[in-house]
Amino acid sequence: MTLRIGIVGGTGSMGRGLALRWALMHETWLGSRRVEKAETVSREYESVARGFYGNRMKGSIKGAVNSDIPSLADVVVLTLPPQHAIETVKQIKDKLSSKHVIISTIVPMSKQGKLFTYSPVIVAGKATYEKSAAELVADEVGDAPVVSAFQTVPATYLGDLDSVLNVDVLLSGNDEHALQTVSEIAQEIPNLRALRVGPLPNSKFVESITPLLLNAAILNRLKDPSIRIVPWFPSDFAEE
Amino acid sequence: MTLRIGIVGGTGSMGRGLALRWALMHETWLGSRRVEKAETVSREYESVARGFYGNRMKGSIKGAVNSDIPSLADVVVLTLPPQHAIETVKQIKDKLSSKHVIISTIVPMSKQGKLFTYSPVIVAGKATYEKSAAELVADEVGDAPVVSAFQTVPATYLGDLDSVLNVDVLLSGNDEHALQTVSEIAQEIPNLRALRVGPLPNSKFVESITPLLLNAAILNRLKDPSIRIVPWFPSDFAEE
Repeated sequence: MTLRIGIVGGTGSMGRGLALRWALMHETWLGSRRVEKAETVSREYESVARGFYGNRMKGSIKGAVNSDIPSLADVVVLTLPPQHAIETVKQIKDKLSSKHVIISTIVPMSKQGKLFTYSPVIVAGKATYEKSAAELVADEVGDAPVVSAFQTVPATYLGDLDSVLNVDVLLSGNDEHALQTVSEIAQEIPNLRALRVGPLPNSKFVESITPLLLNAAILNRLKDPSIRIVPWFPSDFAEE
Repeated sequence: MTLRIGIVGGTGSMGRGLALRWALMHETWLGSRRVEKAETVSREYESVARGFYGNRMKGSIKGAVNSDIPSLADVVVLTLPPQHAIETVKQIKDKLSSKHVIISTIVPMSKQGKLFTYSPVIVAGKATYEKSAAELVADEVGDAPVVSAFQTVPATYLGDLDSVLNVDVLLSGNDEHALQTVSEIAQEIPNLRALRVGPLPNSKFVESITPLLLNAAILNRLKDPSIRIVPWFPSDFAEE
């Protein structure tokens, strides 16, 4: 099924990667604060996608201003830097409803010296140690179901269309239909495996894996690391 | 080099797994609150290890009361349930010095319904959202360097001596010599890879991966999952 997928703050590398992947099947919208930038970038990405997919491509990549994304899309993906995330969500929240599926890919992290650390989102001057970025988004958007996903998938993997992604997407969320939708569009991306890890509060622990992965890369000379959950026995042996 | 490794609270499944692995090379001590239990369990584990390693085995497994572990061992491993961890550390802290290496494997988590969640350690009636279990241990032990490790390695992997562990141990810590020691004894276990993820505060994010792994197992029917960090390119291609 073709979906309308809108990526708020979509002109960065994560938005690029997701748009290039989803444009194969879906009507994809890249949101930006300035419509000119969104349109220029989208034209460039669509041309990359068409060059790669050729006549298999059923979707598209178009640009729009962030505030128009809720009316253009059913699935609204947030690929915003943490410091602007909640403020941008506040600007579009009145246009979001229970018919949307919201995906938060937000990672609240900061650099301390040469390494990264998970930094709780600052709301009203106070660090929210108890809540993940995805929960703070959910607090804003009312009835619209929020799924946390994609934090541990490097944008470089997604943006390189030749790449097969033998890694996991960890999904946290409270709404079954929304989880199902995100699981399906995640698994359309070749070899990505979508694994559920529980209700939305689990997002905090997924979000905090990203700075760990970056630190592991820096300290152990790994390139663009992601994670894969490794079951001990192959699934054939999983039932006793 | 043969080390003296003592495992405080070592009669559980994690202590069993680590002792069975390290007994190949090291003088291994299992600590318990009661010396009789420690000795009975150690005899049983040593016999399993000797049966498996045969005359390749250079180490041993012996039992002792927890409070004697600091005088018997250079490396002191804490495999304690979170609710007893800090209290037990308080009982042995005066015997620990900068010559010891402390390994915290503690995961502060609890079950909510059928799923798990990361629960900050309660100290003096207050939940410590800001600190990991490993940092709370470090606060107690003064000069003795603390390394956080092994939280994401299932005890069942370790305890099955036939098993080759194609997974990662994530190390957090502030002391170079201690990190080096833990890295070496971790990598003596076949195929385990030790990856550094930064100073001790990173332990919080490693500790919180364990409930996620358990939830992923429950919700996606995986058996005993662990994690592996997957670099995008094979290391041969990592330098550009």
